[in-house]
Amino acid sequence: MTRRAVVLLSGGLDSATVAAMVRADGFELNALTFDYGQHHDIEIAASREVAAAQGAVRHVVVPIDLRAFGGSALTDDIPVPKGRSEADMAGDIPVTYVPARNTIFLSLGLAWAEVLGTGDIFIGVNVRDYSGYPDCRGEYLAAFGAMANLATRGAVEGTLPVTLHSPLIDMTKGEIIALGTRLGVDYGLTRSCYDPDPVGRACGACDACALRLKGFAEAGFPDPAP
Amino acid sequence: MTRRAVVLLSGGLDSATVAAMVRADGFELNALTFDYGQHHDIEIAASREVAAAQGAVRHVVVPIDLRAFGGSALTDDIPVPKGRSEADMAGDIPVTYVPARNTIFLSLGLAWAEVLGTGDIFIGVNVRDYSGYPDCRGEYLAAFGAMANLATRGAVEGTLPVTLHSPLIDMTKGEIIALGTRLGVDYGLTRSCYDPDPVGRACGACDACALRLKGFAEAGFPDPAP
Repeated sequence: MTRRAVVLLSGGLDSATVAAMVRADGFELNALTFDYGQHHDIEIAASREVAAAQGAVRHVVVPIDLRAFGGSALTDDIPVPKGRSEADMAGDIPVTYVPARNTIFLSLGLAWAEVLGTGDIFIGVNVRDYSGYPDCRGEYLAAFGAMANLATRGAVEGTLPVTLHSPLIDMTKGEIIALGTRLGVDYGLTRSCYDPDPVGRACGACDACALRLKGFAEAGFPDPAP
Repeated sequence: MTRRAVVLLSGGLDSATVAAMVRADGFELNALTFDYGQHHDIEIAASREVAAAQGAVRHVVVPIDLRAFGGSALTDDIPVPKGRSEADMAGDIPVTYVPARNTIFLSLGLAWAEVLGTGDIFIGVNVRDYSGYPDCRGEYLAAFGAMANLATRGAVEGTLPVTLHSPLIDMTKGEIIALGTRLGVDYGLTRSCYDPDPVGRACGACDACALRLKGFAEAGFPDPAP
């Protein structure tokens, strides 16, 4: 049987690249997206296009309304910061931090993986360009993996040990885009902006846009997304 | 400021007891319940009554539909086992196991705790009478706590270290009921049955009913719930 992979797919460029890597490695792609009350919900539509383009066998969009708790500019009425330099971004944890977001997403990925009979879970975090989020760091991911291997029936019984893959963690945005391009990723389908306009065009000034534009500049070609 | 506690409140007797313990210790009670597509959703109504009776300052019921993944008798059309002995229960992980359930619930509790400005999270698991679920064991909870302390802004910055409390973990059902009774818990408000009838009466034969009835027998008084 083809090995199954659960890939957390946001609709952005990192997770689209991970989906392509997983397919290139021969895994069956099972894509998992969260509708968590984010303002930038065009990324959910983008995730559907990316999942289809990458040949996902399953794509589940789980509604989990984190607005029940509040606490982030991505879900609350707090302004998204604009025009920050890389030095600004490196300095602190930004207001776009969503409390425990990756822990919640990985937990749901863990549940789905067990139901699908696999322990291979992929997340497209990277810390090389942006180290502001605590739950994107390698030591956090290692601790999640250790916990996961005590959490599920499959892991405890030894049939489905959990492996948490973060293949992009040490790559720059430019390296990620170059790799994905070699693997045929259509980055025109992806969306990264935290604060798009009403017709879905990127603002060009938030942290996510700044990093994306820097990545395409490094890779040496223009961003195909609107 | 009164210390805040986030308590995972299911509507069953264990978490009702934890809520009373938290209040007796002087914490502000913030109760968190999940509407996860469980067949036995009368426990959600029960959780509202328990939260009110215990003086919860906040009670959030988060919809998180685990039926999107399937894989458990508590959410799918798989029969709930009935009439099992304690030896039966000790022997394996039952079909009522929900993949990664406590990991998902604790992750959401972690998010809310950070928003509320606390690191104190309480869960009413116990392994003394029933060791079938991997995510109720102490080693699992310790690993979750280690992960949580690397996951959030508050933990990483040192302002909100996470403490995962499981005060019932080594208690029998009888001891839990005796303690809760001393603390004034009205167990008539709680519900434990996995398979209640259409008007909400317990089946009396599933694992949860069997353990509950054994607990009241040990404690020496009758179960006040219907």
